[in-house]
Amino acid sequence: MGPHPAVAAIRLAVRRVLHDVLTDVATRRTLTPHPGTPHVPHPPHEQPPPPLVLVACSGGADSMALASALAFEAPKLGIRAGAVTVDHGLQPGSDLRAAEVVTRMTALGLDPIESLVVHVGRDGGPEAAARDARYAALDDAAERHDAAAVLLGHTRDDQAETVLLGLARGSGIRSLSGMAAVSGAGGRYRRPFLHLDRQTARKACMVQSLPVWDDPHNADPAYTRSRLRHEGLPALEKALGKGVVEALARTAQLSRDDADALDAWAAQAESSVRDAGGLLECAKLYALPPAVRRRIVRRAAIEAGAPAGALFARHIEEVDRLITGWRGQGAINLPGKVVAQRQGGRLVIRQG
Amino acid sequence: MGPHPAVAAIRLAVRRVLHDVLTDVATRRTLTPHPGTPHVPHPPHEQPPPPLVLVACSGGADSMALASALAFEAPKLGIRAGAVTVDHGLQPGSDLRAAEVVTRMTALGLDPIESLVVHVGRDGGPEAAARDARYAALDDAAERHDAAAVLLGHTRDDQAETVLLGLARGSGIRSLSGMAAVSGAGGRYRRPFLHLDRQTARKACMVQSLPVWDDPHNADPAYTRSRLRHEGLPALEKALGKGVVEALARTAQLSRDDADALDAWAAQAESSVRDAGGLLECAKLYALPPAVRRRIVRRAAIEAGAPAGALFARHIEEVDRLITGWRGQGAINLPGKVVAQRQGGRLVIRQG
Repeated sequence: MGPHPAVAAIRLAVRRVLHDVLTDVATRRTLTPHPGTPHVPHPPHEQPPPPLVLVACSGGADSMALASALAFEAPKLGIRAGAVTVDHGLQPGSDLRAAEVVTRMTALGLDPIESLVVHVGRDGGPEAAARDARYAALDDAAERHDAAAVLLGHTRDDQAETVLLGLARGSGIRSLSGMAAVSGAGGRYRRPFLHLDRQTARKACMVQSLPVWDDPHNADPAYTRSRLRHEGLPALEKALGKGVVEALARTAQLSRDDADALDAWAAQAESSVRDAGGLLECAKLYALPPAVRRRIVRRAAIEAGAPAGALFARHIEEVDRLITGWRGQGAINLPGKVVAQRQGGRLVIRQG
Repeated sequence: MGPHPAVAAIRLAVRRVLHDVLTDVATRRTLTPHPGTPHVPHPPHEQPPPPLVLVACSGGADSMALASALAFEAPKLGIRAGAVTVDHGLQPGSDLRAAEVVTRMTALGLDPIESLVVHVGRDGGPEAAARDARYAALDDAAERHDAAAVLLGHTRDDQAETVLLGLARGSGIRSLSGMAAVSGAGGRYRRPFLHLDRQTARKACMVQSLPVWDDPHNADPAYTRSRLRHEGLPALEKALGKGVVEALARTAQLSRDDADALDAWAAQAESSVRDAGGLLECAKLYALPPAVRRRIVRRAAIEAGAPAGALFARHIEEVDRLITGWRGQGAINLPGKVVAQRQGGRLVIRQG
């Protein structure tokens, strides 16, 4: 008798990602020496060390399921499996919680296991600050251990929530593209559960008798994501049907591919709309499709020093009207003290 | 003292659209004879008749506000303003309702006014069937009256709902692009209120003492759109903040521009990936960005006879794997009895 379907599902998802990691490791070892370091191949009689894959585990159902699947699959593929847990220090007893996760990871046979204490700042709000601190710590741990990958437990439900959060920004398809299956420096972060639902992860923990921790933040209506999870998405499912989460996740993938293609087009078109002096020519910009033109304008604003996160669709639209609706408008102020103006048929964007 | 801000807002929105209509009429009269008919210019001593703009009015607040603004603005621009109301025959007394709308349109001074009785079929569900019947009747009325435009009362709130309905399909950014400001044959349909909220239209009716009719369908939870309006969107606003409707409407515009640009790219790239015999070469398709490649595959499937509405993202993904993940798969069945298969490095899509 095979494992419970939920356990089979989480293991298959992890196995697929580990195969990809192995392929990438092999490619990197044979083909591309680390930039800046001489390529010293391992002598033929010496095997390279088995690659290490870390799981980032909060103790919640998603990442506990992920850790269990990694512990099961990694040894079969000659991969070392370790774990990292991050103590954000935001709740009393978070250190005890982290210690408990370490105990559970040890019970799963993972090694090395690290508990990382981070300091959460205030930049960008509580959720963004916690996320920034967490990824900085994970990056650091991955470097220290020379990990080939760090697995993250985000599920299809998390992805759906991320798409809706992006939708609420109204800033275009890039913000609808959610989380990538592979991200970070060198494709370090991998999300094996991005096509799996939260219920499957929870079920897999239950049938494996893995105790899980329900983060009180996840149910705290002070957090946007929590409101979305417990009120927004269920109401949307009630109105639109149960397929909404899947539809949102598929929208993420399609939007990501579309945004990538259009970014590539804009990057390629940009050189063709600059004059000999490197300035953007309005007549040539005008001839481009609006979607491409606005991306070039956005790139130019960011290059001039406008912070990407503060640059909204309405800013780009206003600059775009210097090209498409020219009637002698004055200079337009953009975030980061960047100024856009039209001069002699050229679009000039620079820090003022 | 000027008009109430809500009245000023609806009039401004209509005035802008009427200006566009006039520009288009002028362009058409001087430049482009109607295809297939000889171009007979009006003799210089004979003025062409003033253009006619129709408003499609259900008697609800949005289209009543629209009719009132059209009646006010059109004469100032030398435009004749008429109205059409559609009796779907779906509720007892709908004929009386239509007669009431005619009375109100008459009171606004609109002329001609027509009440159109339509037969609603069953294709695609009750909402789609009613919509199809309505647009067929409007098209017909526009032709008979030689109308330069038909104004539709869709607001920003309708647009937000349409985006969410598209999101629920999970079929990519084209379905997120909502309703166009200009659509139909020759840009016949115009939606002046697409950037205005429903509340403004309602307010404008109130301050002008225009009686409005609340369609019971709009509050009937049997209808997806109604559930979205009364439960889904309010819950989403509660979770994400009041800006959600605006963000959704902006997403529609950005998605539309992006989808247009990518469709243009795919149309242009298609000829470059066909061999001398007109077959799609898998190697060349493989080299394209996924977003462009999948659009070419989709176009080819539709061209082969697959009905666009039945062709989902998962169909295209499966065909795409013949190109990106070739391992000798068999033929793939698509809607409309269309079959896709890989043969000798070519992607062959045809009706089987």
